[in-house]
Amino acid sequence: MLSKSTYLNRRLTLKTKLGGGLLLFLGNEESGMNYRDNVYSFRQDSTFLYYFGIDQASLTAVIDLDNDQEILFGDELTIDDIVWTGPKEAISEKAAKVGVTEVKPASALGSLLKDALSKGQTVHFLPPYRGEHYLKLQEWLHINPAEATQKASVSFIKAVVSMRSYKTEEEVAEIEKAVDTSVDMHLSFMRETRAGMTEKEIAGKLQSIAIGQGGDISYPIILTVNGEILHTHARDLAIRDGQMALCDAGAETAMHYCGDLTRTIPVGNAFTTIQKEMYQIVLDAQEAAIAACKPGILFKDVHKLASTKLVEGMKQMGVVKGDVAEAIEHDVHTLFFQCGLGHMMGLDVHDMENLGEQYVGYTDDLIKGTAFGWKSLRLGRALEPGFVLTVEPGLYLIPTLIDRWKAENKLAQFINYEKLELFRDFTGIRIEDNLLITETGNRLLGKELVKSVADVEGLRG
Amino acid sequence: MLSKSTYLNRRLTLKTKLGGGLLLFLGNEESGMNYRDNVYSFRQDSTFLYYFGIDQASLTAVIDLDNDQEILFGDELTIDDIVWTGPKEAISEKAAKVGVTEVKPASALGSLLKDALSKGQTVHFLPPYRGEHYLKLQEWLHINPAEATQKASVSFIKAVVSMRSYKTEEEVAEIEKAVDTSVDMHLSFMRETRAGMTEKEIAGKLQSIAIGQGGDISYPIILTVNGEILHTHARDLAIRDGQMALCDAGAETAMHYCGDLTRTIPVGNAFTTIQKEMYQIVLDAQEAAIAACKPGILFKDVHKLASTKLVEGMKQMGVVKGDVAEAIEHDVHTLFFQCGLGHMMGLDVHDMENLGEQYVGYTDDLIKGTAFGWKSLRLGRALEPGFVLTVEPGLYLIPTLIDRWKAENKLAQFINYEKLELFRDFTGIRIEDNLLITETGNRLLGKELVKSVADVEGLRG
Repeated sequence: MLSKSTYLNRRLTLKTKLGGGLLLFLGNEESGMNYRDNVYSFRQDSTFLYYFGIDQASLTAVIDLDNDQEILFGDELTIDDIVWTGPKEAISEKAAKVGVTEVKPASALGSLLKDALSKGQTVHFLPPYRGEHYLKLQEWLHINPAEATQKASVSFIKAVVSMRSYKTEEEVAEIEKAVDTSVDMHLSFMRETRAGMTEKEIAGKLQSIAIGQGGDISYPIILTVNGEILHTHARDLAIRDGQMALCDAGAETAMHYCGDLTRTIPVGNAFTTIQKEMYQIVLDAQEAAIAACKPGILFKDVHKLASTKLVEGMKQMGVVKGDVAEAIEHDVHTLFFQCGLGHMMGLDVHDMENLGEQYVGYTDDLIKGTAFGWKSLRLGRALEPGFVLTVEPGLYLIPTLIDRWKAENKLAQFINYEKLELFRDFTGIRIEDNLLITETGNRLLGKELVKSVADVEGLRG
Repeated sequence: MLSKSTYLNRRLTLKTKLGGGLLLFLGNEESGMNYRDNVYSFRQDSTFLYYFGIDQASLTAVIDLDNDQEILFGDELTIDDIVWTGPKEAISEKAAKVGVTEVKPASALGSLLKDALSKGQTVHFLPPYRGEHYLKLQEWLHINPAEATQKASVSFIKAVVSMRSYKTEEEVAEIEKAVDTSVDMHLSFMRETRAGMTEKEIAGKLQSIAIGQGGDISYPIILTVNGEILHTHARDLAIRDGQMALCDAGAETAMHYCGDLTRTIPVGNAFTTIQKEMYQIVLDAQEAAIAACKPGILFKDVHKLASTKLVEGMKQMGVVKGDVAEAIEHDVHTLFFQCGLGHMMGLDVHDMENLGEQYVGYTDDLIKGTAFGWKSLRLGRALEPGFVLTVEPGLYLIPTLIDRWKAENKLAQFINYEKLELFRDFTGIRIEDNLLITETGNRLLGKELVKSVADVEGLRG
């Protein structure tokens, strides 16, 4: 938890951004896996954490702008509960630490909202993403679950985004803690990975590092010898010499700020020649992209820059032909680089993704693209000081996609399909770091994590 | 996945147990943590796994008893999906492996259920436990979420319980795999725990063992120096010499069969004298309880036997006085042993808990108790060959509870409250194993995990 004044000031600022009505903050519930009481590790809603800081299930907060009230709803433990859970700090004590003085039992919320609706007050809520959110909105506000997302308050969303996008010093310090733990996870990966281990075995070990440092993983670890499969999970599959292993893993701190790093290593001691060449292409693209990140530049243009570097590299490999700039205009890069260059990062690893990518990564004047490749770019807007983001270019040789393009002879003026066949089973490489946009440029966050070919191979010796 | 004939036979048997109507099997969905796409590790519903075996999100199965149909509803990957997820086995192929030939898109389910309702068919469903279950039942069957649990089909519940309660040889083999992994986790705990480590650090390491062996943990690990807090999670707290550490942890296999073991160790090399004496009381109670487990005996009576042993021990410690049998009749044991002796175990660690403890652990003629202590006994019914269960007595000195009883001078004829004060901060001990009821008695499952004082201290050297 941050200081009381931080939460007070955040709520004060938020209130100035909205004209009136009630702001409803749905805290998350415990979430059962295979029955109600066998719960996943609790994860509080990030916007709730940002304004109210209390990391506990079954809380709801209301800010009544019209009557200038802040109320937290939740039930204190009974003596019976304490027998089972041990003594715990009361909700009212926690509330006091974040500057909230009014705490009411959960059962009082329904009638408060009913009254508000009957008086014609607007109740602003954010887009739901868990089943429980839909059920609560239905019960309390009579919102049909099918309509809940579209009925979320755009002014509330925009106000939250306009604050959470700019990380303060104390937030950056907490993010750096998360990145430092993420670096420790990757150092373990880069040093200790050996042929014969299974993907799951390595992933489990990395998760234990995140847990051991007091937090947990910030997203399911991607640990795979098939780096070209963008949405994959670690398998019960032994890795082999000659393959590359891609690890996309990050920690979140106890306060739930996130890190998100990717490295790709040879399973053996060294990359093969072709792996080394391809790795260098990705690294060059990443370094060029990072160098370009500064206030005022559209991240969409940084994405384009990285894509250009990747296509230049693939031209050197003989897979792309013709004019590179023209090739990029035709989206040739999406054959190798199907996803976005990066995303905002903070209390969520894809920060505020639940609020909508258009609102977080774009602006009213810059609409997110819909074409293949561009639709996966979560961040396009001009960078500003205080933004924290990832930069994560990659080369992904996806057999299914290659087959499809080849069958259509798609963009054959730019692609040497015969040469491309040689890369069909190359798999994929990604390199990812986290950075803060400063007044003049950017700063890499966290401890250094090596990424040059020589340094990576040095850890594999 | 087990063999096709296993799933075919299970469904065949189930069908003979129910007169008519439609049986609705809700598979689970991916579950977002802080936004929709940042998902927890997927956990399929266990009853779905038992009858349909497919460990994949967003599936629903229907058995139409009136028209003798078995249909699986789910959407195959599109070519676009495959670009992101890699090629995967089709649902229709997985369905064929469990003997289901009819696969329809998810969108076809709504109209099928609508038709069924309009024809007056009964749609049987099991009690919901996730938000998504409530939303689906509302959308498809117009069930008000507040009434969904009470409208669940008792005949369906009873039929499922009458099958899942009796573990077959292949299920027992899978459970033993889970217990073996759980033993490995505990051996790491018992050998490698050292003063100065944090509870979370140790817990994270144990989870990595479960993941590394191809599965995951079967429930959140309890790893604590406050064993008396029954519902606790590992904290970011360093453990110290002189304390005891209690570890309640189990693995589930990739097929989702579970293990569930508990051991309590000294953080230093050896127990103190009083810790040793108390440990021996729990161990004697556990061994007596295990020896008593055989077909025909009420587990409620085994619970009583263990409680008696614990109270006899506490009498030797000078904390209990008077006639032990009489003390037990007055529930004196609930001051030290507030929870149940054990529970069924299988595809869920508390097997079938989502179906209702009355149906799983009791019978129409044996109603679950409501008094303190007894209401926490999940299993009371007569044991039968094929049952797999835990036996897990403990001694828990809970300051809050001691204070409450003392303030009321409760059962003072049996309790030496002055002496009890000496144990106020003793914390807690539990010892837990998993066993299969055989034709003549029982068999401990999994590899041996030592538990005598000498053997435990032997691992701490």
